[in-house]
Amino acid sequence: MLVALCGGVGAARMLSGLVRVVPPDTITAIVNVGDDMEMHGLHISPDIDTVTYTLAGMDNQETGWGVAGETWTVMGELARLGGEDWFRLGDRDLATHLYRTGSLRSGATLSAVTDELRRRRGIAVNLLPATDDPVRTRVTLAEATGLGPAGTEVAFQDYFVRLRHEVAVAGLRFDGAEKARPAPGVLEALAAADTIVVCPSNPLVSIGPLLAVPGVRDALVGRRPDVVAVSPIVAGAALKGPADRLMAELGTEPSVVGVARLYAPWVGTLVIDEADAGHAMSVEAEGPRCIVAPTVMGTPDAAAALAGTVIDARG
Amino acid sequence: MLVALCGGVGAARMLSGLVRVVPPDTITAIVNVGDDMEMHGLHISPDIDTVTYTLAGMDNQETGWGVAGETWTVMGELARLGGEDWFRLGDRDLATHLYRTGSLRSGATLSAVTDELRRRRGIAVNLLPATDDPVRTRVTLAEATGLGPAGTEVAFQDYFVRLRHEVAVAGLRFDGAEKARPAPGVLEALAAADTIVVCPSNPLVSIGPLLAVPGVRDALVGRRPDVVAVSPIVAGAALKGPADRLMAELGTEPSVVGVARLYAPWVGTLVIDEADAGHAMSVEAEGPRCIVAPTVMGTPDAAAALAGTVIDARG
Repeated sequence: MLVALCGGVGAARMLSGLVRVVPPDTITAIVNVGDDMEMHGLHISPDIDTVTYTLAGMDNQETGWGVAGETWTVMGELARLGGEDWFRLGDRDLATHLYRTGSLRSGATLSAVTDELRRRRGIAVNLLPATDDPVRTRVTLAEATGLGPAGTEVAFQDYFVRLRHEVAVAGLRFDGAEKARPAPGVLEALAAADTIVVCPSNPLVSIGPLLAVPGVRDALVGRRPDVVAVSPIVAGAALKGPADRLMAELGTEPSVVGVARLYAPWVGTLVIDEADAGHAMSVEAEGPRCIVAPTVMGTPDAAAALAGTVIDARG
Repeated sequence: MLVALCGGVGAARMLSGLVRVVPPDTITAIVNVGDDMEMHGLHISPDIDTVTYTLAGMDNQETGWGVAGETWTVMGELARLGGEDWFRLGDRDLATHLYRTGSLRSGATLSAVTDELRRRRGIAVNLLPATDDPVRTRVTLAEATGLGPAGTEVAFQDYFVRLRHEVAVAGLRFDGAEKARPAPGVLEALAAADTIVVCPSNPLVSIGPLLAVPGVRDALVGRRPDVVAVSPIVAGAALKGPADRLMAELGTEPSVVGVARLYAPWVGTLVIDEADAGHAMSVEAEGPRCIVAPTVMGTPDAAAALAGTVIDARG
């Protein structure tokens, strides 16, 4: 049994490698819901969808989000109406949101509908939202934007998509986390896993909200020797997204050493890229064992090779 | 000033005639919301949409609902997921529901978002939902169906669309009506109108929920001489939909005389089709004056001619 802690694109790639080296039905992916939002009355779970679309082989590899070969009829009409269209929802993608929202309104939990959707997409990996309760990442902006003066707190997608994460950040808060409970199966999976993989996702806004759900961090601390993380920072930069800038802005060195420092209490092994080989000793000085390997998943084969490294990495 | 009481298709045709004979911005359409529903978390207002699409010239004249040249990408994907797809929502139509639902969730009233949408569609006719409060037509079925045994009460669209109104009905109820208030402007429009037109809509399930909103029926009774209705029953049959069967099942003769009897307390003039000319005296015996004219709006010219008849009909 293998558990993967997941954000969006980096995690989806990691999972697509893992399913090539271990039986998919032995994998449980615990997915961030801090990015979730309500838009047009629909419940949107961007990380769950990215993981689902990727494992179903229907992901849009160019954008890193949404569905391949997507069409935009609904959004086009919504734009003509003057509706909010900064968060782009493709026509096929919308079917997911309609299905999910209808089920939630009928009383289903997010984990139940996530499980239904992954089965209906033919996915054998067990997908669990970190929690069925609302946890929403809120971002305090360090600069004035169209959304308000410096110091304004906005929803994650306002920062990430609407402002294209081009603005400095002064703080993060995981609204609702203190009252959230891990989704059914989360703590059980963490307790039973042979290996717990921390995918190369944003440590602060993808892995952070997972850790903020009461009980999850403690469970990880208890499994520390079996927790293997892949650094999302390579040569001082994030491969995608604002992880490097967020780390710097919020007081952590944007490097594999910074990742090691953040993860040290609960990660036993950190896999870093060959580009960072010179930092291996500094990583180990922070606590985790360090493994150096190619971590850039540019191809399915590269993702599978990294998956093999991670599975063999456990101390 | 002219007010039109509206259901769906018949009312939309009547309005498209009226706008050809009086300035559109002197017309206020008060539209039934008893057919409204929540589906996939979206607020759907079928009658408001039929009227809006028709006045915007984007209605699908073949189906009588939805948008011309519609595409079905979202529904196709939803069907592949095994989601509920019996209520067909086209891609462009969905943009309306997303816009409306997002606005309602942000705190807008149904009348505010209806007004916004009609303006953005370039419609000069003032569109008012009968009420901003939830009024939902519930149908008690007289026969067993896939939805339950005889006597089961279902939502209107379950009867109308899901069961294709092919089942006998034992009763109607307008859930929420007793607590509903007329939408802002409804009573004012009824008080100020020179003529109040009752469009050829289903008397029981389109006009009925309008009358059930406290205050509306009394306002109409007070304006009786100025209320002109067009019979939706021609030669004993409804031109579209189940009005004739519903009337028979619920104890009213499905004829122009039956319509006259239903409407007598608050309708001063009833316009009936030439096919029913022989019933004119029986209509007047029920109370309303009777005018005989072509009422089948097969073409835009026919609709405009009927509109002229209605406007000239006031006693």
